[in-house]
Amino acid sequence: MDLSASTATLAAAAADIVRLVPARYTDPLLSGLLLTAGRDGVVLAASDRERTARVSCDALVHTDGTVLVPAKPLAETLRALDVDRVRLVVEGSRLAIRADGARFALPLLDAALHPGVPTPPPPGGTVSGAKLSTALSTVSATASRDDTLPVFAGVRLRAEDGALVLRATDRYRMAIATVPATDLSPDIDVLVPAGLLSEVAKQASGEVSLATDPNRFTLSWGNTTVTTAVLDGVFLSESSLVLNTVDTWVETDADTLLAAARRVALYTDARGVLQIEVGDHELRLRGTDPQAGEAEESVKATVEGGRTSPAVQSRYLIDALRPYTGTRIRLSIQPGMRATVITSVDEQEVPIKYLMMPLLPPRQ
Amino acid sequence: MDLSASTATLAAAAADIVRLVPARYTDPLLSGLLLTAGRDGVVLAASDRERTARVSCDALVHTDGTVLVPAKPLAETLRALDVDRVRLVVEGSRLAIRADGARFALPLLDAALHPGVPTPPPPGGTVSGAKLSTALSTVSATASRDDTLPVFAGVRLRAEDGALVLRATDRYRMAIATVPATDLSPDIDVLVPAGLLSEVAKQASGEVSLATDPNRFTLSWGNTTVTTAVLDGVFLSESSLVLNTVDTWVETDADTLLAAARRVALYTDARGVLQIEVGDHELRLRGTDPQAGEAEESVKATVEGGRTSPAVQSRYLIDALRPYTGTRIRLSIQPGMRATVITSVDEQEVPIKYLMMPLLPPRQ
Repeated sequence: MDLSASTATLAAAAADIVRLVPARYTDPLLSGLLLTAGRDGVVLAASDRERTARVSCDALVHTDGTVLVPAKPLAETLRALDVDRVRLVVEGSRLAIRADGARFALPLLDAALHPGVPTPPPPGGTVSGAKLSTALSTVSATASRDDTLPVFAGVRLRAEDGALVLRATDRYRMAIATVPATDLSPDIDVLVPAGLLSEVAKQASGEVSLATDPNRFTLSWGNTTVTTAVLDGVFLSESSLVLNTVDTWVETDADTLLAAARRVALYTDARGVLQIEVGDHELRLRGTDPQAGEAEESVKATVEGGRTSPAVQSRYLIDALRPYTGTRIRLSIQPGMRATVITSVDEQEVPIKYLMMPLLPPRQ
Repeated sequence: MDLSASTATLAAAAADIVRLVPARYTDPLLSGLLLTAGRDGVVLAASDRERTARVSCDALVHTDGTVLVPAKPLAETLRALDVDRVRLVVEGSRLAIRADGARFALPLLDAALHPGVPTPPPPGGTVSGAKLSTALSTVSATASRDDTLPVFAGVRLRAEDGALVLRATDRYRMAIATVPATDLSPDIDVLVPAGLLSEVAKQASGEVSLATDPNRFTLSWGNTTVTTAVLDGVFLSESSLVLNTVDTWVETDADTLLAAARRVALYTDARGVLQIEVGDHELRLRGTDPQAGEAEESVKATVEGGRTSPAVQSRYLIDALRPYTGTRIRLSIQPGMRATVITSVDEQEVPIKYLMMPLLPPRQ
């Protein structure tokens, strides 16, 4: 293999792949980057068997070839170079990265042993990258970080009435976002690792095309294609939650409530209990902590129905309010240990619905 | 106590104090902030017995008084408030922080048990805050993070020919900066904790006045005064180092060498050995690592004398070059296990001299 290419383009491609397929295993083959140079340029690819990513780049290819090299040193060297173009050339048992006055030589790993990157399933619709990112930034963050229970560490993506509906829950809260889609296959219903989707949310741009088969899910945008094994498990559906006993409706400004919640959260105890008291024309947030003291803050609101006043986890309330920045929100509150539902009163480009379970009120 | 003041001013004062005197002990009294309201406004102060800080703020004082409250909750609440003015008022056993629609109540600690903030020693000269910060950002970073050996965790500040000379070493390298001073007392020669000085470097502005007595060292700027106990120990002086066997002089561009060193450092082994080879018109940097491979990069240089070629710790070389950004530097290299001296060829506002001990070259 012998090629020259734009340093910035190659560096961006290598960095994107390293973030999409981080080396999670000690097997050096799986933390390798597979470079394939051919007539159309160079393709960078990585696989850890569960997920694969490939990015194609323009390159001036002098000699075709395929090599496997350690991914991170390659990505870091390309990022650190401050020359416009770089040459990658196989020299004996090394891939040399050459720039004016400098030579960096990476050991070649055995490309024949690499699992490779399979052809993705046939495409099944497209969504806007920007809207998908908006949806994912809320929904992926709502999944559990703990991946011992895959169903809580995944985001369910499902075609519903031609739109892509994304849902995630960690048992204590659930986020639901609806992203408009084009030509969406009605069969799409997959559970995908939230960690990968968080990274996709950072990278995806332009049009994103979706594809699925019984075991895999693929996202493609620009020159990038990511495929992951889907997770097993029966996702907790909203229909299993009681949502029809709402007796209290509150409308208020999301930003004002968020700022107040952040302040009062400084005064919550180890459990993070924040009491929301529904008054006639306001919400009162209260927190109390044996060390820090007590806090109380009122936020103007329109209240209808009863005065059901839930206690919530302060951190969860802050997370729940973040997607509604700049809008007026409606809280639909149910008595007892049933979820509070947050939606926007204003129109959102990507409509988001947030369900938050209450806590037991603070012990007196 | 009852006062109202600008939220931003109080928040900045509280945040500065929390950073200058971080709560290092579990004693709640020592992680408290002492507020003294009087005719001239309010004074915020903290002490952990070894160091003290005080900041005075304008305030409209309705009732004088002194209270001690937990520092961090106060600082965080003030920072989170988005109102112009805030009221601090004692209500029973609480200090209430009041703003429109909100009340945050901090428990009062026993102010009588607080060690207080003693009067600083008489002033002994001034330096420019900006120049002191430049000097400290290099010199404090060269001290050891490990404070079991105080002499390596401190910065020595010493009056020499009317200027303030700052020195720090962690045994493997030494940084020496010379800051012009006004009316400097010739007696100043103290060893001060580097951690505190790093924070001072971030905060100091305008004129900084220095003061010392046998056990304490004080820095004051604007409305802020910081006093610390000085460290014990005999500081390793330059005169104890051999610096007169230089046989190789190299001049090169600091930024080019720094960028090359950062790239080659990616290819150094666990010891971080980076080989500097002195050629006729260039420096060649070499690194080799069993996993990552090998790197070699050349940087143009003017070379005089011999061709003594030291091996250095790559991280130390990068640290050593950083203070010379934008200038041409001179490396004075000695044979054997003796220090390489880095100075700037161009004039620096705050002249810095950097000494770096060599490593044994990589085992072949």
